[in-house]
Amino acid sequence: MGAALANAFLDQGHPTTVWNRSPGRADSLVARGAHLAGTIAEAVSASPVVVVCVKDYDAVYGVLAPAADALSGRVVVNHSSGTPKQAREAVDWADRHGVEYLDGAIMVPPFAVGKPDSVFLYSGPRAVFDAHRVTLETMGGPRYLGADPGLAVLYNTALLGLMYASMNGFLHAAALVGTAGVGAETFSEIALDWFAPDVVVRYLRAQASEIDKRNFPGTLGTMEMNLTALEHIVHTSAEQGVDAELPALLRAHAQRAIAEGYAGNNYLAMFEVLSKAGPRP
Amino acid sequence: MGAALANAFLDQGHPTTVWNRSPGRADSLVARGAHLAGTIAEAVSASPVVVVCVKDYDAVYGVLAPAADALSGRVVVNHSSGTPKQAREAVDWADRHGVEYLDGAIMVPPFAVGKPDSVFLYSGPRAVFDAHRVTLETMGGPRYLGADPGLAVLYNTALLGLMYASMNGFLHAAALVGTAGVGAETFSEIALDWFAPDVVVRYLRAQASEIDKRNFPGTLGTMEMNLTALEHIVHTSAEQGVDAELPALLRAHAQRAIAEGYAGNNYLAMFEVLSKAGPRP
Repeated sequence: MGAALANAFLDQGHPTTVWNRSPGRADSLVARGAHLAGTIAEAVSASPVVVVCVKDYDAVYGVLAPAADALSGRVVVNHSSGTPKQAREAVDWADRHGVEYLDGAIMVPPFAVGKPDSVFLYSGPRAVFDAHRVTLETMGGPRYLGADPGLAVLYNTALLGLMYASMNGFLHAAALVGTAGVGAETFSEIALDWFAPDVVVRYLRAQASEIDKRNFPGTLGTMEMNLTALEHIVHTSAEQGVDAELPALLRAHAQRAIAEGYAGNNYLAMFEVLSKAGPRP
Repeated sequence: MGAALANAFLDQGHPTTVWNRSPGRADSLVARGAHLAGTIAEAVSASPVVVVCVKDYDAVYGVLAPAADALSGRVVVNHSSGTPKQAREAVDWADRHGVEYLDGAIMVPPFAVGKPDSVFLYSGPRAVFDAHRVTLETMGGPRYLGADPGLAVLYNTALLGLMYASMNGFLHAAALVGTAGVGAETFSEIALDWFAPDVVVRYLRAQASEIDKRNFPGTLGTMEMNLTALEHIVHTSAEQGVDAELPALLRAHAQRAIAEGYAGNNYLAMFEVLSKAGPRP
């Protein structure tokens, strides 16, 4: 990902200095015109904006700490993975070292870096984001989420969670129809060309404002009706010999929603159940 | 749903005979011109096509058995919920009584019945579907899935499973960003207007044919990388105080995939895990 970011800057003619913990990893970038720094202090001293993308926040400190003096007065844009708590700790670290700090999350794979519709999420001081927006646009389409520095990694984590749940939902569904010899591509003509975007996503989008109002009227179907449907999915999964754990967990959540008093509310009252810490997994 | 189906026929000027187990439930249909049958035998005798929509297959037999003689030589189109096994048993029942049988699944809520883009799924003999396609088009947009009578209910169950997994994925994600005061509607501008359709659905659609080939190259990211991401989601969910059971199950599935030898394959190798009966839920 670091190479993709550096390439995006080189593609658009920006003077770009690179540094990597492993010597030799930057050779192809140097061949394209990047300046290779010998030390991290030299790297951060070369530019007003320092773009970081490493494994996690511990790696961020490991890389930047030796160059803390050189960083003073510069901007660090950190795209590493972490928790909101870690992002806020990074702000404290930056404050102690006189560094302006923007926390980011890259929502696209490396090959899509550098395209204007590739979403990069940012949180932190609005003034820092605005002052460097043009630089950030070199990497993708930057979206500012708010002043809370934890927002970018929190959005990133939430979106990945949505992605994995949806992928397993699709793969379980494909496994189910697969028991009758239906291929995933054939199934996707109905499941992905129509049902997922036109029914599921559209319904959630239309109801999002009602979630914010905690308005879950049973006229859109009750949790009890949905529990019956989930029991049916568990039963059919078992009968067809595919994994039933995912629908079984969704069934358990519907049962919990009913136990908590949402029997007559529509399914989106599940938001109330998921908003609380449940049994420790 | 039965009233919505009958209304669709009345709306388009079809002579329509209705019957309901509960007297009085058909009054509004009668006021709109439907003929009310006094008995189920009278109801099925009135038309060449009998449309059924009740709770489950037991209810189908309970309703139709007293009229079995009158059904001989007619077509039954059954939209009730059930399993593929139950759909095949219904074919046996129909065969024994000289009834032509089509199994169906209604994929839209009652208010959308009667619109040409409202998907109705059918399986069973192609000749029966073709002979009555125009009649079926009165209720919605009929799609023929194949001769195996279990296909309609199997697709229905698979699509509902995809729907619930996606809904819980979104609600869990909304709960996560909610801990930072971000509303579901604000979140949905990125999660539902862009990420779900343009990233998740598009990726799955592009890879569906590779699932059919069991081709899961690690160049698209490895299962081990995805396990790290899932551990991060579980950890962040716990740290933010929201339910962590859904990501914890997805993590367990990734661990199982790795244990089964898919560590170096991309995430869609999860299909192999979900295609087998897992631990009994």
